[in-house]
Amino acid sequence: MVDVFDKCVLRSDHEMAASLGIYPYYRPVQARPAAGEVVIDGRTLVLASSNDYLGLSGDPRLAEAAARAAGELGCGNGSSRIATGSLALHEELEGRLAEFVGFEAVMVVSTGYQANLALAPLLGPRETVAADLDVHASVIDAARLGGTRLRRFRHNDAAHLARLLEQTRPDAPRVVVTEGMFSVTGDVVDLPGIAEVAQRYGARLVVDSGHDLGLLGAGGRGVGEHFGMQPAIDVQTFALSKTLGSLGGAVAGPERVIAYLRNRGRAALFSASLPPSCTAAALRALDIVADEPERRSRVAAVAERLSTGLAELGFATPVTSTPIMAVPIGDTLTCLQMAAGLLDCGVFALPMVAPSVPEGQAVIRLGATAAHTDAQVDRILEAFATTGRRLGLLEALAAAEG
Amino acid sequence: MVDVFDKCVLRSDHEMAASLGIYPYYRPVQARPAAGEVVIDGRTLVLASSNDYLGLSGDPRLAEAAARAAGELGCGNGSSRIATGSLALHEELEGRLAEFVGFEAVMVVSTGYQANLALAPLLGPRETVAADLDVHASVIDAARLGGTRLRRFRHNDAAHLARLLEQTRPDAPRVVVTEGMFSVTGDVVDLPGIAEVAQRYGARLVVDSGHDLGLLGAGGRGVGEHFGMQPAIDVQTFALSKTLGSLGGAVAGPERVIAYLRNRGRAALFSASLPPSCTAAALRALDIVADEPERRSRVAAVAERLSTGLAELGFATPVTSTPIMAVPIGDTLTCLQMAAGLLDCGVFALPMVAPSVPEGQAVIRLGATAAHTDAQVDRILEAFATTGRRLGLLEALAAAEG
Repeated sequence: MVDVFDKCVLRSDHEMAASLGIYPYYRPVQARPAAGEVVIDGRTLVLASSNDYLGLSGDPRLAEAAARAAGELGCGNGSSRIATGSLALHEELEGRLAEFVGFEAVMVVSTGYQANLALAPLLGPRETVAADLDVHASVIDAARLGGTRLRRFRHNDAAHLARLLEQTRPDAPRVVVTEGMFSVTGDVVDLPGIAEVAQRYGARLVVDSGHDLGLLGAGGRGVGEHFGMQPAIDVQTFALSKTLGSLGGAVAGPERVIAYLRNRGRAALFSASLPPSCTAAALRALDIVADEPERRSRVAAVAERLSTGLAELGFATPVTSTPIMAVPIGDTLTCLQMAAGLLDCGVFALPMVAPSVPEGQAVIRLGATAAHTDAQVDRILEAFATTGRRLGLLEALAAAEG
Repeated sequence: MVDVFDKCVLRSDHEMAASLGIYPYYRPVQARPAAGEVVIDGRTLVLASSNDYLGLSGDPRLAEAAARAAGELGCGNGSSRIATGSLALHEELEGRLAEFVGFEAVMVVSTGYQANLALAPLLGPRETVAADLDVHASVIDAARLGGTRLRRFRHNDAAHLARLLEQTRPDAPRVVVTEGMFSVTGDVVDLPGIAEVAQRYGARLVVDSGHDLGLLGAGGRGVGEHFGMQPAIDVQTFALSKTLGSLGGAVAGPERVIAYLRNRGRAALFSASLPPSCTAAALRALDIVADEPERRSRVAAVAERLSTGLAELGFATPVTSTPIMAVPIGDTLTCLQMAAGLLDCGVFALPMVAPSVPEGQAVIRLGATAAHTDAQVDRILEAFATTGRRLGLLEALAAAEG
């Protein structure tokens, strides 16, 4: 008899990493003694890769709100939203998000992954759906659940999107999906270009703002505010687990679209609802996002200090004021060795290797936060310098340039 | 131009319910003044449909554990498990679940829905997958993500499963998927029958124990303990949002299978990890599940009192000691009127109508909990009696019997 378990072998790069003692994933955090720090294996490390861009997840005001909600309403809701698990607190968060970003309606779901999955009813076999090549895995999964054949346009390439849509049937509804701030490289969508093409071809524009809510725009209202073109976005999804420091996701759009997804989005229908604690924490975070714009200035300063420092060391990292940075390393083994070297120097950073990125284009993916001190940034830079030199990376980069 | 938003129309039964003022879904709970009670529209109601079977979601010990974890570790982890969002607390919960149920390894994910979705790599195009007709929507979605063509066997019908497997190619890996305790009807899987067929045909047996963990078996170890045949289950999934009163899910199995799913299950890989609060609450609940078997006796007594009372009133509900009851009502409109009538009588209960159940077979889906008092059960029964009589349901049932 053949056994489905026979396919359960580890990826060769993971096996290699494990055999070398440098497997970098699923490292359990034992404590978070201060913002920007974690304890792993009893050692206090600078956390260099996080999506908690405003440093809110550890904010005591969020913890207080979470504790109060758990005490008053319990630790779970015992059911899905559509059944008996909806809270007035969910609706309060929905109303606040709708007002904050500028939408008629919002649906809160239990994870950001499920927010994108809940788009599946808009991505059916009848629709022509074009997605940026770099959209998040959850968009791919939503398309698979919806049954559409996903067409991909080159990353942030409005002209390519136009050529792609030009070849599609005009009698099928068109949907364009992109990301506000891309999760690996940190670059911001070309919203003017993409939105113009979407409008020209009568396509609805869906933007996954998992990473930019709370961060982009003077008021932290995300990528729409950043470009002053919020009305160009038809449907937008958010994560409550990144800048808002909690867990959960949300889908925003016109009232009738959200009402439809509430009753058709299986990831919304068939999942236990977001606990009181997570909902209350996200609500409190939304206050802070609005009230403390200095957090956005601070994360921009941290990102600039970090990216400038990396560029000065010789890493091929663009100087940026947005928090996500992909530091190019090259092949899988070198990237895993780099991560291990950083860890030796007291810095916990995330290596991304094939197949998450193309073969030979492995990166260390950094996430700056407003909670990072200058001293922590400098420790990250020293670790990159030490390890980069030890691995001969900086010399190789210098030679490639020269 | 055609517009994808044109498809966003409400289901006709929902429109009808809304126009009659009896739309029963997404009712926001404002407060939970006591176990088994909710406040909606300012009125205190008995909650008759919940999956919080042991009454733990509102237990102050869970709230304390959640508050402490949020204070110490923050409200979110800022990342996925594989990246920088794993906690020692996640591993503690995994170890405890593995030991409690009896598996080599467990992977904790952020929702129960995502626990089943993370099975997708085992449900690929090469595998022959047979699932009970009544399995949860998340299993269907996992099969769609995995790319398998799902074969369905009649509910709990081992003989039909055998005939179905008999017709499949012996050189394809076989997987059988069923549920421990079914979420709508509350019946328990015929584990001896199904497991025997799975073994005879060399199929791996996957059981979704979203509803039975903590509930079935003398020690609350779930359906495997209930039948004394835990080793017959190859892979088992759990929800932390039902009996454990929190949010989250888990997949249990042999070490190499869980290691494989940790690196291939997209719903595990690409989603922010379970917050400290939810993880700590589930851990505390697991203590209580083990330490307080009287909760299982109590929910059995509540279920018996409730189901016996319903049967005595004339409803076609089997007498049961498990907490899920589907009270047959009939057509959609009558079922929605029944739910509205129950609400008038101070009871919040969930109507399930087509397409969630077959047309004409609408039910009120009840969930008994250990937190229900006898007085609350009697209030539920009075509400069923009053509303059933008002709608002429009990007379119809009596006539059908006579």
